[in-house]
Amino acid sequence: MKETRIGIIGATGYVGVELVRILSSHPYARITHLVSQSFVGKTFSQVYPSFLGICDLMLTGADAPEVAKDCDLVITALPHGVSSQVVPVLLSQGVKVIDHSGDFRFRELEDYEAAYGLVHPCPELLSQAVYGIPELYRKELAAAALTANPGCYPTCSILGLAPLLSGKIIGTKGIIIDAVSGVSGAGRKADLAFSFCESAENFKAYGITSHRHTPEIEQECSLLANEKITVTFTPHLAPMKRGMLATIYADLLPEKLDMTGDELRELFVRFYAGDPFVRILPSNSAPETKHVCYSNFIDIGIFKDARTGKVKVISAVDNLGKGASAQAVQAMNVMQGYPEGTGLSNLCGCI
Amino acid sequence: MKETRIGIIGATGYVGVELVRILSSHPYARITHLVSQSFVGKTFSQVYPSFLGICDLMLTGADAPEVAKDCDLVITALPHGVSSQVVPVLLSQGVKVIDHSGDFRFRELEDYEAAYGLVHPCPELLSQAVYGIPELYRKELAAAALTANPGCYPTCSILGLAPLLSGKIIGTKGIIIDAVSGVSGAGRKADLAFSFCESAENFKAYGITSHRHTPEIEQECSLLANEKITVTFTPHLAPMKRGMLATIYADLLPEKLDMTGDELRELFVRFYAGDPFVRILPSNSAPETKHVCYSNFIDIGIFKDARTGKVKVISAVDNLGKGASAQAVQAMNVMQGYPEGTGLSNLCGCI
Amino acid sequence: MKETRIGIIGATGYVGVELVRILSSHPYARITHLVSQSFVGKTFSQVYPSFLGICDLMLTGADAPEVAKDCDLVITALPHGVSSQVVPVLLSQGVKVIDHSGDFRFRELEDYEAAYGLVHPCPELLSQAVYGIPELYRKELAAAALTANPGCYPTCSILGLAPLLSGKIIGTKGIIIDAVSGVSGAGRKADLAFSFCESAENFKAYGITSHRHTPEIEQECSLLANEKITVTFTPHLAPMKRGMLATIYADLLPEKLDMTGDELRELFVRFYAGDPFVRILPSNSAPETKHVCYSNFIDIGIFKDARTGKVKVISAVDNLGKGASAQAVQAMNVMQGYPEGTGLSNLCGCI
Amino acid sequence: MKETRIGIIGATGYVGVELVRILSSHPYARITHLVSQSFVGKTFSQVYPSFLGICDLMLTGADAPEVAKDCDLVITALPHGVSSQVVPVLLSQGVKVIDHSGDFRFRELEDYEAAYGLVHPCPELLSQAVYGIPELYRKELAAAALTANPGCYPTCSILGLAPLLSGKIIGTKGIIIDAVSGVSGAGRKADLAFSFCESAENFKAYGITSHRHTPEIEQECSLLANEKITVTFTPHLAPMKRGMLATIYADLLPEKLDMTGDELRELFVRFYAGDPFVRILPSNSAPETKHVCYSNFIDIGIFKDARTGKVKVISAVDNLGKGASAQAVQAMNVMQGYPEGTGLSNLCGCI
Repeated sequence: MKETRIGIIGATGYVGVELVRILSSHPYARITHLVSQSFVGKTFSQVYPSFLGICDLMLTGADAPEVAKDCDLVITALPHGVSSQVVPVLLSQGVKVIDHSGDFRFRELEDYEAAYGLVHPCPELLSQAVYGIPELYRKELAAAALTANPGCYPTCSILGLAPLLSGKIIGTKGIIIDAVSGVSGAGRKADLAFSFCESAENFKAYGITSHRHTPEIEQECSLLANEKITVTFTPHLAPMKRGMLATIYADLLPEKLDMTGDELRELFVRFYAGDPFVRILPSNSAPETKHVCYSNFIDIGIFKDARTGKVKVISAVDNLGKGASAQAVQAMNVMQGYPEGTGLSNLCGCI
Repeated sequence: MKETRIGIIGATGYVGVELVRILSSHPYARITHLVSQSFVGKTFSQVYPSFLGICDLMLTGADAPEVAKDCDLVITALPHGVSSQVVPVLLSQGVKVIDHSGDFRFRELEDYEAAYGLVHPCPELLSQAVYGIPELYRKELAAAALTANPGCYPTCSILGLAPLLSGKIIGTKGIIIDAVSGVSGAGRKADLAFSFCESAENFKAYGITSHRHTPEIEQECSLLANEKITVTFTPHLAPMKRGMLATIYADLLPEKLDMTGDELRELFVRFYAGDPFVRILPSNSAPETKHVCYSNFIDIGIFKDARTGKVKVISAVDNLGKGASAQAVQAMNVMQGYPEGTGLSNLCGCI
Repeated sequence: MKETRIGIIGATGYVGVELVRILSSHPYARITHLVSQSFVGKTFSQVYPSFLGICDLMLTGADAPEVAKDCDLVITALPHGVSSQVVPVLLSQGVKVIDHSGDFRFRELEDYEAAYGLVHPCPELLSQAVYGIPELYRKELAAAALTANPGCYPTCSILGLAPLLSGKIIGTKGIIIDAVSGVSGAGRKADLAFSFCESAENFKAYGITSHRHTPEIEQECSLLANEKITVTFTPHLAPMKRGMLATIYADLLPEKLDMTGDELRELFVRFYAGDPFVRILPSNSAPETKHVCYSNFIDIGIFKDARTGKVKVISAVDNLGKGASAQAVQAMNVMQGYPEGTGLSNLCGCI
Repeated sequence: MKETRIGIIGATGYVGVELVRILSSHPYARITHLVSQSFVGKTFSQVYPSFLGICDLMLTGADAPEVAKDCDLVITALPHGVSSQVVPVLLSQGVKVIDHSGDFRFRELEDYEAAYGLVHPCPELLSQAVYGIPELYRKELAAAALTANPGCYPTCSILGLAPLLSGKIIGTKGIIIDAVSGVSGAGRKADLAFSFCESAENFKAYGITSHRHTPEIEQECSLLANEKITVTFTPHLAPMKRGMLATIYADLLPEKLDMTGDELRELFVRFYAGDPFVRILPSNSAPETKHVCYSNFIDIGIFKDARTGKVKVISAVDNLGKGASAQAVQAMNVMQGYPEGTGLSNLCGCI
């Protein structure tokens, strides 16, 4: 296999460090550039001492053309509004990009501008960008120059809903996604709200009537259902570092009310046949975040609530794994023509 | 005020120890009897060394008539099926009882027997028992000999729904309660599933299609709405010791769709006027479990999701506080004619 | 009893909030003034929503003369160097002060200036200040206008060593104090090092060759032993919010080598006879931080290591309890002539 | 490289699952047999769902001769007293063994029998067994048929003391090891003491005057110093799943009192030159457990306490990594002639 030289811009955030961890064991990837504005002149392992002897690269400033020189592919883990400044420069140098921000996830300019309150500097790229869920866009990713890596909540939610929506099993109104994230979802920063003493032994909802991941979920659900879908979404914060779980509620269509739980589950099994990182759990089994942490897996449990005619889907990912960095590596494998599980298939949590 | 002599049967479980903590500062209550089958012959503080010098009572075996001799009121924290053996004996000795099991929470015998799979030995007591939420049954509690202290999930859910149901604001179909508990809800026991290494850094759903608190929630919601209500309920476990949060979803009735969030909130304020332990949060504020832990408060935030026509209510309690022991003391205050907040009004979490 | 009107300057830090929690239930104390530079114009319960309905006082700026007007006693929880500006003003208005900083803990000016690298603006107050451990300075506290509340590590260490030093049981060279604190010891602040993701699942030492509590420990140990004592002290940080444990190692003097563990323990029992907040544990029992959290207790276990001729003392406090706020209230009780345990004797952890 | 077929007996404990995690990515190892008495007939991934798709081997009962048939090397993770029954059978079939119990760690029969209170059934194996710290016994391991994998505390302590003892830098009396472990050190079991509610937010010492790792530490220290050494050792339990930190105190010999901290550090650098998994931290840097978790590294910081003439060494390992399973794989690499870091050199924590 041909080696891919990889740069990471935004290397010292939690998405960045997880990328470095995964790519350090990837047989065909070689990290050539780590950019971190805040730590220029330090080595990566000075910022993350656990990497001493594993990744001691020097961190550099964010000169995109410079980065482009020795990279085949750059992964950007930057804030929205910043990515859209950097990505066009990289692309113009012939470098492929996987972007972690919200800047390239929307198909419609107005959706982006409504969600993020920004004018997009390069709207022409929106149609080129591929939404980076390989289970849904594998073919497009294989040809992509720009991949928009999805948000963690959208990945967890969309994959939990896709078989039901594309199979026309559920009503498209009244879908509820009640989801929970570990604290690393808030990023690496000095913020009292995410301090140990304020976060430990606490559980709360946030972004209750407006969270930027809502329109992203709705965009993909609408495409799957081939009609405009509005969802009710509530994110929560749990006192753990990593992990995400979505409990999804939808009404079975009247004509599908007699489907059994096993039949619903079978629908998922068939939909995800050939997708190595989607694990449809046995009947009556529910996922737990610890079973997916440190991995690229999404675990999905499907339940029929016969009393109320609802289906409950429970899906779990690592917010930094399948919800961010590991999925980016999965997309990179597809983009570069490597077997999709390269460097990912043995990643798993332990205790 | 006349002193109340109190016995606790099941004193060394987590509900028991929280009762001892609260009652140790109660000005009119005196603990005279602590029963714990498993620790007979030890003192309470040998089992819970934090109580050394605060409660050093000897633990005794469970001879109900003996307990009745020196108690005015007994609080039972026993498994279902066991309570129903002990409670009639206590009542027959003229002792009042507050029971923490499911044995006396149901109005209809068949509901109990369906939920717990047991034949009830004293069904005649069901109609005498008062469901121990003072905010809903204050008058009945004042006259009660037997109080059935509600489950933690029901307390948190019912108080979050009561103003909406009794005010005829929401549709009675499609109500969803997505709730989260700390690990102490599972009780004090040696169980691998609740060990530190299996519970820390983990989040999961459980009892997904059948949890014994569902029919209890439905019973009280049906009474409030004056029609039969079925709810969808999903409990989850979060890696924290204490605390419970319910995120409740309901559809505004078509004729109520133009109510603003503030009007919905105002409805709650009026409904709970005069209830010292219900705190309706300011507009657009959401509760956090740490704000209610160690207290008898329930904090409630109300949100209108205009995009989907739903109301979201988020309510938080301490599963051992308002969700169990503190609420039992509140009920005891009402039963004994003490000011309702006695011994409870200064309890609060800190950090 | 005569009521004491109390002001707290630095009310929204963790020491401050714990003071408010304790004083809210104190029968003779009334909080009249809460000062918090950062939150002027907010109520205390807006900063700490758990206190909604319990303490809704308005927070004010730090005008010491203004505070003095309606207070009998002010508790300052300010950084070192700031306290020494404020305290003299308060004293000059005839107000008693309990100070939580390092500014008044040293008897010798040079010790202070070496430890804190500051010129002391009011060195004349050092001789007036009483070091606020009631178990050692009860008589002096009864007459004090200015109490210097000790650091958490010193409280935990000094009380663990006092009977051995004053009883001439151990060698005065080679004493080692290996201690551990919960994260709240670092205070309430936005600091990446104390964020949830950086602190959870982590254990580390810090301040390894120089920690400001070392000279404070040495000062009091030297006074107890009546000779100059140098100790080796290593603080550590554990992933928990509250709690502190010190494991203390000392060599038995040659002539004391045949003392049994029980005899050593008996020495502690006698030394602390009449001290309600020192709990000498039964033989071969070791303290745990959870047993003292939320309380004013210090739990002490004494062990003889016959193989090496050492005595190990293990002492535990809540770093915010006996290690800070609760001890301040204990000192206040002594200063104001209240029974020493007022408002403190029923405080205990639960689970 | 020739493949090694590996069996694990005791595969579902925490040491076992960490072995499976590491070996699943090892290029020359193939797991052929997983034995777990308690879960016979289940697959490994049914017990640990995080391994679904990664290790789905069937768990079998503990018939040693059967295991020997298709294994070149067996790793036993069994209780002491059980290992010594199984290991001789395996060896007699020509299979190499790495044992995790205390049964083969002692050179002197009487030390074993004193520490474990058992009669050893095969004392003749004690002289054949190699103590499995590759940094100290690399050559012996290369020829070993039976490796006794050290305890976690001994690994962390011995490697922190070895350069000082073999270099004759410190006094051999008065060495103190104050160490802390995460809860996984207690193993996978249903035990109230290690439940989430009893362990979270708690810190305690245990085994204060007698812990079985003490004589193991003393044996190796004595060999390094070439004289009989007695140490004072206190283990503690911190509320985290994984990780171990030892704070070691020793007196510099009078003639070494003028060595600087940097000179002491340099001694460690030289001693561990060529040891890829020992990371001597920069001057004045202290290890943190999160930096070594999930890896095979031991991080060591060296500090001179000039005031007291002591050296403090702080060493950190993952109790399941370098403290158990990862070190076993390192030993296996040496025994099988693989490069020592095979399958281990990219393992690291992240957040």
